[in-house]
Amino acid sequence: MEKLSLPVQGERPPRKSSSPSPSSFVNTHLSLTKVAVFLLAASLLGFNRLKPTVLSAFSSTPAFAELSGYCSHIPPIPAEEFLERQQRLVDTLVSLNASAYIAEPGPSAHYYANLSSWDLTERPLLLIISPDASLRPNLTILTPSFEESRVRLMTIPSRDPASYATWREEVNPYVVAVGAIPASATKGPVFVDGEMRTFVLDGLSKAAPLTPVLAAPVEVQRLRQRKSHRELEIMKCANEVTLLAVRAVRQKMYIGITQSKTSALLELALATAGLSSGDGLVLFGAIAARPHGGGGDAVLGANDLVLIDCGGTLHNYWSDLTRTFALPATILTERQLEIWYAVRDAQAAALEAAKNGSYTRAPDQAARVILKPNGWEKYFTHRLGHGIGLQMHESPYLRGGSDDIILTGHTFSDEPGVYIPGEIGVRLEDSFYIDESGSGVYLTERVGGQAVTPWQP
Amino acid sequence: MEKLSLPVQGERPPRKSSSPSPSSFVNTHLSLTKVAVFLLAASLLGFNRLKPTVLSAFSSTPAFAELSGYCSHIPPIPAEEFLERQQRLVDTLVSLNASAYIAEPGPSAHYYANLSSWDLTERPLLLIISPDASLRPNLTILTPSFEESRVRLMTIPSRDPASYATWREEVNPYVVAVGAIPASATKGPVFVDGEMRTFVLDGLSKAAPLTPVLAAPVEVQRLRQRKSHRELEIMKCANEVTLLAVRAVRQKMYIGITQSKTSALLELALATAGLSSGDGLVLFGAIAARPHGGGGDAVLGANDLVLIDCGGTLHNYWSDLTRTFALPATILTERQLEIWYAVRDAQAAALEAAKNGSYTRAPDQAARVILKPNGWEKYFTHRLGHGIGLQMHESPYLRGGSDDIILTGHTFSDEPGVYIPGEIGVRLEDSFYIDESGSGVYLTERVGGQAVTPWQP
Repeated sequence: MEKLSLPVQGERPPRKSSSPSPSSFVNTHLSLTKVAVFLLAASLLGFNRLKPTVLSAFSSTPAFAELSGYCSHIPPIPAEEFLERQQRLVDTLVSLNASAYIAEPGPSAHYYANLSSWDLTERPLLLIISPDASLRPNLTILTPSFEESRVRLMTIPSRDPASYATWREEVNPYVVAVGAIPASATKGPVFVDGEMRTFVLDGLSKAAPLTPVLAAPVEVQRLRQRKSHRELEIMKCANEVTLLAVRAVRQKMYIGITQSKTSALLELALATAGLSSGDGLVLFGAIAARPHGGGGDAVLGANDLVLIDCGGTLHNYWSDLTRTFALPATILTERQLEIWYAVRDAQAAALEAAKNGSYTRAPDQAARVILKPNGWEKYFTHRLGHGIGLQMHESPYLRGGSDDIILTGHTFSDEPGVYIPGEIGVRLEDSFYIDESGSGVYLTERVGGQAVTPWQP
Repeated sequence: MEKLSLPVQGERPPRKSSSPSPSSFVNTHLSLTKVAVFLLAASLLGFNRLKPTVLSAFSSTPAFAELSGYCSHIPPIPAEEFLERQQRLVDTLVSLNASAYIAEPGPSAHYYANLSSWDLTERPLLLIISPDASLRPNLTILTPSFEESRVRLMTIPSRDPASYATWREEVNPYVVAVGAIPASATKGPVFVDGEMRTFVLDGLSKAAPLTPVLAAPVEVQRLRQRKSHRELEIMKCANEVTLLAVRAVRQKMYIGITQSKTSALLELALATAGLSSGDGLVLFGAIAARPHGGGGDAVLGANDLVLIDCGGTLHNYWSDLTRTFALPATILTERQLEIWYAVRDAQAAALEAAKNGSYTRAPDQAARVILKPNGWEKYFTHRLGHGIGLQMHESPYLRGGSDDIILTGHTFSDEPGVYIPGEIGVRLEDSFYIDESGSGVYLTERVGGQAVTPWQP
């Protein structure tokens, strides 16, 4: 088949779940009625073992109605901000004496031109941004000829209308791409997005043998890494409502509930909260010591901590949050409490260490310093955190050994954890941004920020 | 969340479907009973409008039972063939004075080391193959330390056990990767798979500043392109049963059936036939003139041709087949017949032109020559075909302007089409291979090969 690519609804990185979740079938855009009928059908099929407790949530008031509309006042990124991004990119290209920036559809093409809803195939579709003679952004979309009409349906914000450089099946698309760079552009290297596939990079290199075609340097990467006021407002709301959703799910939990039922509640809560691609990981007790979970559908015991790690997107920006908590009836040991508070203190120390101008390794190190005295540091087996934005995980990363620089507008997850095999897993995660004063502020700040106690997540 | 990557069940490129299909929810591994209950549930939800005609297929003999087990005698690729591939790769590297071949999980890593079931994340997981001191294959898997135990669960065929080069969060993984290339290897360039992401390529380049890191050249690409006897046996069976499935679906169709019902039948037929990721495009009448379809769920009229384009995988190898056909009761005009036979003749001419040693543009040109006299060529708006194997679309491609060389063992789709907007769309597709004598042979040959008439697909 001459298969044509499909527009898709943004990316959805899969999350590891400890058991197949019935609600993975649930389209979050379905009405609650349909969800209820569907869960009933799924239940008949043995896809899950939902108790009436869960189903009854649909019978009167819809479950999690209090989360609905929480972010409805937050607008998506307006066209003018896309134009600003394009101008900043062109300014940066000029300052680096580069002639163009080229990206395949994906997070970077979305950032600059709202261009992400396109399945990648062997036929290149490319966003090309170059400085024109007046050092203004010149936008070209390289597209297969037979896709042109469909490509033109996508809204590409630009000051002057974007050009469409089409390539027919019998020509070399990369020659067309290179030819689309305005003659007026500076003559330096072409920078490409880090997600571009090698065969595209290779095609461009061969079509422009005299021009270096290089992965975009950090000066370009930082443009997308550092969030604007509008982006931060979206990310704050997404992270706030994610925390509210976890708290709301906790209210419906009980000793004896299963991981899979909790997962189903969580997905419903995130969808009701207005997040897209909402998904999460639910792990009980010692299972949380295995970062992947696994081993069947556990039942919550009276001494088990619950770990929920989840997120979703609002206007394409991700939230990412983890709470490890107890129910009102849960009885915790001194050791569980000691570990929980150590992780909490590590999380706070990491935030404190994240300053404009400091190294990305510094917050990771600060968390480890807190965990070391009691011997927990050796159970903190992953990096502290990752950049977050249009991708759930994006550069830069907060990890030992890294020497990127933290700057205002950067957004990161702060998620230390202690995982003792067979015994316990505690992770606490809030994402944060670096504010204008140069300090880290949790994106969940307006709904309380970091967890207070295992009973106050 | 420090999200960990998920093992996935191979890739499934989405196919464009003219309307949301209820069966996209159907896990092909469910029993037929579950499918039946599910379709009933889906029907309650208004996801489709399946008539009792379709549902009754489940009531006595399961529908398409005759397709079940058709390929059960075909074994997957055995370990010894993976070892042969590795040795051929190393021989090729040595002949090109290259020091290593590196691929991310995907079709190429699957081809050489059965390594594809891994979601790509920002943390590189790499297959590295180098010649050792005896010019035998040295296999290394670069893996994040915390994923090592999970990575070791994957079966990597190799003569000597593969090495695992692990990298901790605080080190540069690319330095570890380059360090894993045996000192005994030749000192030339490192070749990387064309699907590798630019940031990985860039990381390797910076970690090996004195070694060129390049997209693998055609000599390496051809190793995977040219299929072995075992691969061809798998691909023959997959394509044969795909054709049988289309014929079986046709037997259940009637004037008045909808595209969506036909799609549901098709997916069931492909799944029953034992194919994974089975999916297809069903277009009626003039809708087939739009390669994407679209415009609601059409009803089959008495003068409509039916276009079905579908495929699925057997042991990870794709089938790909299109039939444009009539039902016994369909009445076709002379013009419809003229176009249909012109496309059929174009398909035959293309096969005839595909010879060992000829250019990949030659079959495309041969098909156009047939369509030109009657003026249909201008409605043949896409290339003739694509390579096929572990990817539905893979290099080389049969298109105008291309100067790759067709060689024995190459496998391609042969799919000319005529699309007259608002009127008609006809495409006929069989995949073929180049046999030892240097000629093209349809992979569907044993079940009749190309369609005979619109009533004998």
